[in-house]
Amino acid sequence: MNLATSFPVSQRSKVRRLPKRGSRERADVYAILDSNILCHIAYVIEGQPFVTPTGYWREGDRLYWHGSSASRMLRSQSAGLPVCLTVTHFDGLVLARSGFHHSINYRSVMAFGRASRIDDPTEKQTAVEAYVERIYPGRNAELRAVDAQELKATTVMGMTIEEASAKVRTGPPVDDEPDYGLPVWAGVIPIRQVLGRPVPDPRLAPGTPWPGHLAPYAEGEGLDTVLSATAKAAS
Amino acid sequence: MNLATSFPVSQRSKVRRLPKRGSRERADVYAILDSNILCHIAYVIEGQPFVTPTGYWREGDRLYWHGSSASRMLRSQSAGLPVCLTVTHFDGLVLARSGFHHSINYRSVMAFGRASRIDDPTEKQTAVEAYVERIYPGRNAELRAVDAQELKATTVMGMTIEEASAKVRTGPPVDDEPDYGLPVWAGVIPIRQVLGRPVPDPRLAPGTPWPGHLAPYAEGEGLDTVLSATAKAAS
Repeated sequence: MNLATSFPVSQRSKVRRLPKRGSRERADVYAILDSNILCHIAYVIEGQPFVTPTGYWREGDRLYWHGSSASRMLRSQSAGLPVCLTVTHFDGLVLARSGFHHSINYRSVMAFGRASRIDDPTEKQTAVEAYVERIYPGRNAELRAVDAQELKATTVMGMTIEEASAKVRTGPPVDDEPDYGLPVWAGVIPIRQVLGRPVPDPRLAPGTPWPGHLAPYAEGEGLDTVLSATAKAAS
Repeated sequence: MNLATSFPVSQRSKVRRLPKRGSRERADVYAILDSNILCHIAYVIEGQPFVTPTGYWREGDRLYWHGSSASRMLRSQSAGLPVCLTVTHFDGLVLARSGFHHSINYRSVMAFGRASRIDDPTEKQTAVEAYVERIYPGRNAELRAVDAQELKATTVMGMTIEEASAKVRTGPPVDDEPDYGLPVWAGVIPIRQVLGRPVPDPRLAPGTPWPGHLAPYAEGEGLDTVLSATAKAAS
């Protein structure tokens, strides 16, 4: 473990179960965070836990998400509540020779910190544009600017990652040694998030082409591969 | 809203933002829950929220998940802590004519209740087998039985859904009326979790065929479609 390249650990973020599957290296954490844009954020209101699926993006050790200014989630988080932001890729079904050893392959990150609302309008505008640019590098140049009314209706949250850990399972099932001789099909059924054929808006202005900046979003591509590439292109 | 077929609502589960996207009808909630097996569960330990990706399954208004008896998550939930269990399908990227109106298409359910540990060994065994059967109907008949040691190492949690709400976004972007004339590509890039070609365990017993009970898991199928069908077949 390299102190300079890894996130700190505490009881909160320690990978307890199967620690060999865990990592706190920034490179591992970033790789998982940068190949998705949908996370699940947990927060507590009056003792009740909530978990909400939310779009997010990363800049260095900062995570951002946004939503409507009327959102209960964002209003409650504005008070600087502790949150846990988890990103998960579901990579496969693992079929073993006994019910007990069935599993799933996945890549996930749990990141801990305190959310804070970004109030400065310029910073907010930069953030909203950064999110579009992170997914679709080059797209902002073709869009009209976000206006003051839209900025007002948008709440942007930011969180510095205080602790984070990645956890990954890959590969075949791990069965009990005597079970390997059983005539039971065992192995992995891979799962991938794949892009379909783009569906143009029925009200698309006549003659509007599929633009060059969307070339990475080709039908059949893996979402994680595309998002990793666009994250690199945008940074 | 039909009282007999829908979940109750409180401040906790009310869909506040864009309520037209929300539903508390059991049929809507079940359809989303039954087309996935990976959820995100939020829980609180000493004021700190956590959200952990976990496999789950449904029987009526009961949700189940399981894991290692050494899991911190399961140990803390055993005390009857309130949890929120969220299931999300990421269905597409929605590209609008302004940065503000970019969105994602999704189907999600938030379910609220109190987790409790299932301690009776017979009930535990039934539950572990039910999870395998729910994903792979017919598979338990080909597996050796779960043994006492494995049952001891497994913690099974159950939760009666007290409240639940579904939220869905589908279809094209919704832009400001004057923006529809802009020559900007707008529409939806669909995303789907797709099954890949099965990868047999390198230690598969020679001559073991791909079994009939795995026929639904054909390469190229959508995971949600397959899981909906296997949930029906198992119930």
